[in-house]
Amino acid sequence: MSFIATPQSMQFDAPLPLQSGASIRGYTLAYETYGSLNAAKSNAVLVCHALNASHHVAGVYEGKDHSEGWWDNMIGPGKPLDTDRFFVIGVNNLGSCFGSTGPMHINPDTGAVYGADFPVVTVEDWVDAQARLLDALGIDTLAAVMGGSLGGMQAISWTLRYPSRVKHCVAVATAPNLTAENIAFNEVARRAIATDPDFHGGNFYQHGVIPKRGLRIARMVGHITYLSDDVMNEKFGRQLKNGIDLRYSTQEVEFQIESYLRYQGDKFAEYFDANTYLLITRALDYFDPAKAFGGDLSQALARATAKFLLVSFSTDWRFSPARSREVVKALLDNKHTVSYAEIDAPHGHDAFLLDDARYMNVVRTYFANVDREIAA
Amino acid sequence: MSFIATPQSMQFDAPLPLQSGASIRGYTLAYETYGSLNAAKSNAVLVCHALNASHHVAGVYEGKDHSEGWWDNMIGPGKPLDTDRFFVIGVNNLGSCFGSTGPMHINPDTGAVYGADFPVVTVEDWVDAQARLLDALGIDTLAAVMGGSLGGMQAISWTLRYPSRVKHCVAVATAPNLTAENIAFNEVARRAIATDPDFHGGNFYQHGVIPKRGLRIARMVGHITYLSDDVMNEKFGRQLKNGIDLRYSTQEVEFQIESYLRYQGDKFAEYFDANTYLLITRALDYFDPAKAFGGDLSQALARATAKFLLVSFSTDWRFSPARSREVVKALLDNKHTVSYAEIDAPHGHDAFLLDDARYMNVVRTYFANVDREIAA
Repeated sequence: MSFIATPQSMQFDAPLPLQSGASIRGYTLAYETYGSLNAAKSNAVLVCHALNASHHVAGVYEGKDHSEGWWDNMIGPGKPLDTDRFFVIGVNNLGSCFGSTGPMHINPDTGAVYGADFPVVTVEDWVDAQARLLDALGIDTLAAVMGGSLGGMQAISWTLRYPSRVKHCVAVATAPNLTAENIAFNEVARRAIATDPDFHGGNFYQHGVIPKRGLRIARMVGHITYLSDDVMNEKFGRQLKNGIDLRYSTQEVEFQIESYLRYQGDKFAEYFDANTYLLITRALDYFDPAKAFGGDLSQALARATAKFLLVSFSTDWRFSPARSREVVKALLDNKHTVSYAEIDAPHGHDAFLLDDARYMNVVRTYFANVDREIAA
Repeated sequence: MSFIATPQSMQFDAPLPLQSGASIRGYTLAYETYGSLNAAKSNAVLVCHALNASHHVAGVYEGKDHSEGWWDNMIGPGKPLDTDRFFVIGVNNLGSCFGSTGPMHINPDTGAVYGADFPVVTVEDWVDAQARLLDALGIDTLAAVMGGSLGGMQAISWTLRYPSRVKHCVAVATAPNLTAENIAFNEVARRAIATDPDFHGGNFYQHGVIPKRGLRIARMVGHITYLSDDVMNEKFGRQLKNGIDLRYSTQEVEFQIESYLRYQGDKFAEYFDANTYLLITRALDYFDPAKAFGGDLSQALARATAKFLLVSFSTDWRFSPARSREVVKALLDNKHTVSYAEIDAPHGHDAFLLDDARYMNVVRTYFANVDREIAA
């Protein structure tokens, strides 16, 4: 049984300037905190979320079964990121659909639902919004910023936008930018959503419909890229849904893997917002700190002053170990302090959310050292 | 300039029993032949096609620009499969949309367009239909059967269903069955098509519409799996469509890779039949000669008497070299004669259709030996 978590929210009236040149005002950020901020305010850890997660990082909601936070195995009392030692903050990003202001909310400038007009937000914009939340919470410096996948990109971005405010960066299963193949998968998902007749150019809220067909396809594509070929073969292989006899049908479910993917797609389409999916995949596409330096990642990471832990997983083909090694190399080029663990795990990209003793121990040991640094 | 090819077709009145238990009668097969059958009828080579190809394997159509057959670099006078030496036959498979009977044609039993009622066909059914065509052409024994990808599966199936009728099997970039991940990608494509409101349960012909949205998504997903990550990065990388400035849009094209995929999807939706796509991906899913032998591929391949050449490509992640090696091992377990070439090529699965000197030379040398065998 985990501890009880309580969602909170904070309203921001001042406009936040965005990378696109637009700005957003009168927005809300949903967040949660676990543990206690120490008197020196030196034990805060910000945890950034990936594509379909939220500010509900750890703990459970009172009276709600199956409400564990998405990184509850990692964060809590006595866990690798120990909330008995650290004050942990989870924030839902702008444009998301779990409490912070997003496309389904009212644009204060027009009085109408944002819909397709919600401004395109970037990893850098999220980091800026998170920094304002920390300001409001009275936290100047983070003991660490941590995230996996897209969350790892935010963690890296923190060390570049606010170098003096971050002591440590823990970036798991992430990459310094997307490959063409990564962008390609995102684009398939976006096209599936945007060409669903129920999408209505992003203004489906007014039509009382949801582009579920597109969301299902988007989730199915995504899910394939989260798992390794090995784990899919082990879990599903060529198992048929109905014993050993083929049904000879192109539209009915025949193989277990089809059943699994359809289930994941159906579930996702029930709770995820279509515009949010477009926004978040675009933020992934855009992230590329080296771009301003002619593609030179070493130059891009020069301004970081944090110490780094990077973790990757051997079978992750979405953000392969080679991508983490690029970051490690660029940090070493700058003589920055970096630890790197490449975990031999079968689960593909999803491994960053799963229990693996070696992975958990690496993170536990790293934060124990951060804790000692704070005490020193 | 290639030679002139002339499409032909043959009508079959007798019902063809199918693996599903159904049968199909009064069907047509479109085919082409190149070169001359020798007096002993011992120099025939059947070439089987993959997902979106046809009987138009080589040559060009008279007066038609850009009408080269899909394997024109491989097959023709003086080419690796030399039509000055061999009589080459290309057949369009049942259920396809390029001339053989398919879902868009009239079911003689009902007088109505087949649509969703077109029977589910398997690799084995295609091989049986091809055997009947050879019967009609007066060809008892094939010097070789050859194919890439799904075509390679048909080539392998030939050696098991008609062992005495095949001397050589050339199977390129293929696999003894699909992995869970392969099936998963097929299922995403099928769901995109089948959930397109214009699909009408497969009976869209009567509605005068085409499920183009679904076909586009299906093709985009497929294309990603045909290319290697490396070649995608080399060809497109993170290049923007409009110079260096971001447009900050989730629906407009931003990256070159998006533009390429959309173009491929649009083109495909103009010419490919949606029901055919479902049928052909299902045939891929079902192919599994080891299934009847409790998954033991060595037992399954025991009955083959042909000699084999297998070719795989290092960066093919759709049908990886490991899958070809499974076939090679199972053949060796049976002390069958097998040659195997693993070509270090950057192009992914698509490599089997592209020019690569080492690949072309392997096939050229193999067929030169087959030719010597025939002459001996």
